[in-house]
Amino acid sequence: MSILVLGTVALDSVKTPSGARKNILGGSAAHFAMSARLFTDVHLVAIVGSDFPKKYIDFLKRKKIDLSSLTVSRGRTFQWKGKYEGDLNTAITLDTRLGVLPEFRPCVHDAQKKIQFIFLANVDPDIQRHLLEKVACSAFVGLDSMNYWILHRRSSLLRLLKAVDVFVANDQEARLLSQEANLIKAAKFLINQGPRIVLIKKGEHGALLYTKDFIFSLPAYPTDKVIDPTGAGDTFAGGFMGYLASVKRINQANLKLAAAYGTIAASFNVEDFGLDGTSYLNKRDLGKRLIQLRKYVAF
Amino acid sequence: MSILVLGTVALDSVKTPSGARKNILGGSAAHFAMSARLFTDVHLVAIVGSDFPKKYIDFLKRKKIDLSSLTVSRGRTFQWKGKYEGDLNTAITLDTRLGVLPEFRPCVHDAQKKIQFIFLANVDPDIQRHLLEKVACSAFVGLDSMNYWILHRRSSLLRLLKAVDVFVANDQEARLLSQEANLIKAAKFLINQGPRIVLIKKGEHGALLYTKDFIFSLPAYPTDKVIDPTGAGDTFAGGFMGYLASVKRINQANLKLAAAYGTIAASFNVEDFGLDGTSYLNKRDLGKRLIQLRKYVAF
Repeated sequence: MSILVLGTVALDSVKTPSGARKNILGGSAAHFAMSARLFTDVHLVAIVGSDFPKKYIDFLKRKKIDLSSLTVSRGRTFQWKGKYEGDLNTAITLDTRLGVLPEFRPCVHDAQKKIQFIFLANVDPDIQRHLLEKVACSAFVGLDSMNYWILHRRSSLLRLLKAVDVFVANDQEARLLSQEANLIKAAKFLINQGPRIVLIKKGEHGALLYTKDFIFSLPAYPTDKVIDPTGAGDTFAGGFMGYLASVKRINQANLKLAAAYGTIAASFNVEDFGLDGTSYLNKRDLGKRLIQLRKYVAF
Repeated sequence: MSILVLGTVALDSVKTPSGARKNILGGSAAHFAMSARLFTDVHLVAIVGSDFPKKYIDFLKRKKIDLSSLTVSRGRTFQWKGKYEGDLNTAITLDTRLGVLPEFRPCVHDAQKKIQFIFLANVDPDIQRHLLEKVACSAFVGLDSMNYWILHRRSSLLRLLKAVDVFVANDQEARLLSQEANLIKAAKFLINQGPRIVLIKKGEHGALLYTKDFIFSLPAYPTDKVIDPTGAGDTFAGGFMGYLASVKRINQANLKLAAAYGTIAASFNVEDFGLDGTSYLNKRDLGKRLIQLRKYVAF
């Protein structure tokens, strides 16, 4: 089944111990799309400015991402500038220029309103709710957020949690939103807010899938080539949601496999700058690492 | 086969969000022994002062720990005072009183010199080497250390690494000793120093087993009851080494199972203060959680 992702398409400038890149294609929806597209067709809902390079539009189209709901507005595209140091686990934001982002009112056309898999990647919770009200009420919905919204829009976010199936967060966000230091307690708190699945991403430490019926833990795929982790969480979510959109049933076995595909997709993402690690990826590449990951955890 | 552990036996005073305890039995060798004893008979090599409470001697004897090489010296027992906050991942040392520890010259009797499983828990690397020179050169040797020795006795420690089979470290220590931020690179560095097995403990994030032949990753056993993590790493090492001492062959399957038993033993350790979480443990308790852990990672 198709998947619809709401989020940002951005111009990223990033500096890591491996080098630097300026104004490369990034944003939560772009990273998500790059892994979700390996499983199903992806419809992107986002806004960019009139400065947005045509080469990036062409690139996304070549990757078969549906851009019919990408708004191009007069003004500047959202820009993020950041760096990573040491173990590369935490991004240090140097500058954020919202550009056209605050005026974003997501629009979807009638055919897209019937899409059954929706991912609300990290943007203002009010924009996320705005889209959610437009899509099928039978849809399977995933939600991501970030520290900024947790701190400044906690009640909006908690309301939104009641209306989604999956909440995706990193460990810091899960702790911040739940106000629990222990991650299992944090997951319990989150599941009690409404979603039936909580997916906590822990960077180099892997991920925790917490549901009312079972818990599943997965390490990160072991790589010693971490070039740029920007977008790893969105790439993870794209693999996870993309796989679920491609299977017949959302059961325990498929949820675990979805988390494994998310893990694998994220491992490719961190191995190069921006989308360079995932833009040439295919399902065979994912499959090879999936076999490795299975060996790596089996005992 | 028997196992011999060199390390500290200490009086710990600890404060955590769940409460506080004063002068409870602790130390690397005591925590190690409490899990290793579930698999084999344990010989403890350590020093305590003349103030060491008889009730703790009696307790260790009741747990069938061989104390024939426990030196009781005039002076005070090693004392550690610390606290944990927030996610309880890092101990904050408030006070350390070495007492009789600096005068420690480990002695083992002839029968103990033939023991084939040796664990050098965290003490001065010179004391560790001193013991290593006395035991069978065919022995399977595990080594642990800590930040203090890595910073102040780096070359002694690196020399010692050449003479052991397993190096056990937490993620901070592995990064500090290897001077690599990436944990896979850190493990590669460590394995190139001599040991054929590197076991990196990551607290709530589980453990990484790195060998020349395979990599194995394991999450921590999911518990929302973290009372006192003091000694969790030593308890892990005790389960790991204890299981290896109890099997016929040290192969991939058994090394993975050993890491799983270490994980399980550590999960019981953190659920109560000091040795309270492990002192009444039996193999059936371990077995039950092992089944859970298998489910928790299988996909």
